Amino acid sequence: MQPQSKLVVEHSAGECPIYIDSGWLPGIADAIGRSTPRCAVITDANVEKLYAAEFFQSLNQQSSQCVLLTIAPGESSKSLDTAIDLYQQLLSAGIDRQSTIVALGGGVVGDLAGFVAATWQRGIRLIQVPTSLLAQVDSSVGGKTGVNLPSAKNVVGAFWQPQEVYIDTKLAGTLPDVEYTSGLAEVVKYGAILDDHLFASLESRVEQLNRRDPQVLVDIVLRCCQLKASVVKRDERETTGQRAILNYGHTFGHAIESVFGYGKYPHGHAVSIGMMAAARLAQAMGRVDEDFVERQCNLLTALQIPTRFPAERHAEVIEVMKHDKKAIDGHPRFVLPRGMGHGELVEGVSPDKIADAMQRSAGGSK
Amino acid sequence: MQPQSKLVVEHSAGECPIYIDSGWLPGIADAIGRSTPRCAVITDANVEKLYAAEFFQSLNQQSSQCVLLTIAPGESSKSLDTAIDLYQQLLSAGIDRQSTIVALGGGVVGDLAGFVAATWQRGIRLIQVPTSLLAQVDSSVGGKTGVNLPSAKNVVGAFWQPQEVYIDTKLAGTLPDVEYTSGLAEVVKYGAILDDHLFASLESRVEQLNRRDPQVLVDIVLRCCQLKASVVKRDERETTGQRAILNYGHTFGHAIESVFGYGKYPHGHAVSIGMMAAARLAQAMGRVDEDFVERQCNLLTALQIPTRFPAERHAEVIEVMKHDKKAIDGHPRFVLPRGMGHGELVEGVSPDKIADAMQRSAGGSK
Repeated sequence: MQPQSKLVVEHSAGECPIYIDSGWLPGIADAIGRSTPRCAVITDANVEKLYAAEFFQSLNQQSSQCVLLTIAPGESSKSLDTAIDLYQQLLSAGIDRQSTIVALGGGVVGDLAGFVAATWQRGIRLIQVPTSLLAQVDSSVGGKTGVNLPSAKNVVGAFWQPQEVYIDTKLAGTLPDVEYTSGLAEVVKYGAILDDHLFASLESRVEQLNRRDPQVLVDIVLRCCQLKASVVKRDERETTGQRAILNYGHTFGHAIESVFGYGKYPHGHAVSIGMMAAARLAQAMGRVDEDFVERQCNLLTALQIPTRFPAERHAEVIEVMKHDKKAIDGHPRFVLPRGMGHGELVEGVSPDKIADAMQRSAGGSK
Repeated sequence: MQPQSKLVVEHSAGECPIYIDSGWLPGIADAIGRSTPRCAVITDANVEKLYAAEFFQSLNQQSSQCVLLTIAPGESSKSLDTAIDLYQQLLSAGIDRQSTIVALGGGVVGDLAGFVAATWQRGIRLIQVPTSLLAQVDSSVGGKTGVNLPSAKNVVGAFWQPQEVYIDTKLAGTLPDVEYTSGLAEVVKYGAILDDHLFASLESRVEQLNRRDPQVLVDIVLRCCQLKASVVKRDERETTGQRAILNYGHTFGHAIESVFGYGKYPHGHAVSIGMMAAARLAQAMGRVDEDFVERQCNLLTALQIPTRFPAERHAEVIEVMKHDKKAIDGHPRFVLPRGMGHGELVEGVSPDKIADAMQRSAGGSK
């Protein structure tokens, strides 16, 4: 079965094809089974309930040496403790250097399984099958993997490119609302900092996006993956600052997640709130006008994504930002827009301006 | 201060210079301090007692932002638990993506600190300062890093090339005998499988090696690092089988360490015993003659390195070898000599021959 869309991410160690279509999960399992004699499928209990039986059955028609390893759902599984559990299970299952790890799930599963693949036997093959919209447009592409420490997100990890990525946009239909809108927040991000046409296209397709039209999602996910692939190609290991552009909203967002506890704010919602704070910071610095801030706020709101900064614990959020892994010498860096579709990395922002942007995002003003 | 010898390891991401001299530890600290504005020096309590004060003082004359992190000595520290402790300390110390990790110690420190550098913030700079002979000729060069699971050695890890390696052969003078002879076993390994001239040169310099002549050690360490660098250049990630040549004695050796508990047999001694078993296996297969086996046994014995297989738990050792990470479908692979200075990777050896070689290595026969 030929998927509808395909693109290729070029990276230092080769190429990673991304296949995108709607309603073809058994076809994905079939393709993986044909190319993979032995694998460990890592998933979480929610995804297992919905898809694992069907996926595993199709997989095992091709390949009889696959094991299914299921973790608890949620950000708390993205930990070294869970990684240690998985290592033990890989050892018991005889997963060796010629085997493959298949990540079937959302961002937590992809980041964790990717880290395990990067570090098992000093690195084995990885295939990503992202089931959440967030993972489809973001975390499954580009090779970032990682786990959290109790007090800091993604500080332990590796760059490890998947061999292939398979995306079925129909899976977004079964996501809980918060997870779906969390993914949409990252879609809006691509428009705001990289592609004003995408942003306008989202504004014109709010209704289809809100009812999760799988065909519209194939178009949108393809565009987001293209944008991400072009950034990753230019800056695979986030050393030149170009890849850091993708962190629009993330400096505030990660700090919110950290202060309020992982899981209280879903990642995309924290990023959405962070994008609004960043937009207001950019406005205060004269980088964008009021129209930019309004368009972004209106689109996020129309897509039912939260935009308001939690009006408490601001000092803690600022403190956490100083330890963000993108910080240099304790000074947080921000991605800030300069007009629609153009993000830039900005350093040396004064703490007063940061606090002010948070304050204005909390107050309900647009 | 210019070190006496320098060579360069070429790898996929660039080059790693190795500087070798005798009695220049303050010079090493000085050089690192000049190029490294912020670093975490990871060492163990034994090395700390001997060298850390001097090293740290020289380092801090150049660079005021270095922290010293000390682990407990011994193979049991090469664990994910210790890695987690170190991650927490790196976070507290503000070690960011622009910082460097300096591994000051033997193989355990190098492998563990290397793994932490490979996975902290998705990988930061690493400088190796190996203090044991074993680490100087082997583990500090080539980018292998890793930790053990309770039941399997080195199964979790990454390939992560150091930016620089600094070697002071005078440090070998303070090693306990077992550690020094453990390093010499790996030196003999290079001769047996890669360089008959090196092997003959060791045979003629037994007396100088036994009294740890630092100048002779500069020559020998340089030659071992050259041999390793040429192998690493051809097969950085151990995918073509060429790098696996360096595992002469290791299939048996790792299994011995695993069955008898890490630390009971120092790594090099386990490898020495494994080399004798492998030599006898090679002899049984008609690959080497009795003279090869005798020369290897005589050199190891003259250098005061154990050669006899523990006459117990053979079945367990064989079982563990099936799970060795170089095993393919549960069949252990061996590096076996074909004449002096030529090792080859051999698959599909019958279990009877393996058991027989272990038996004959245990009996005290040459």
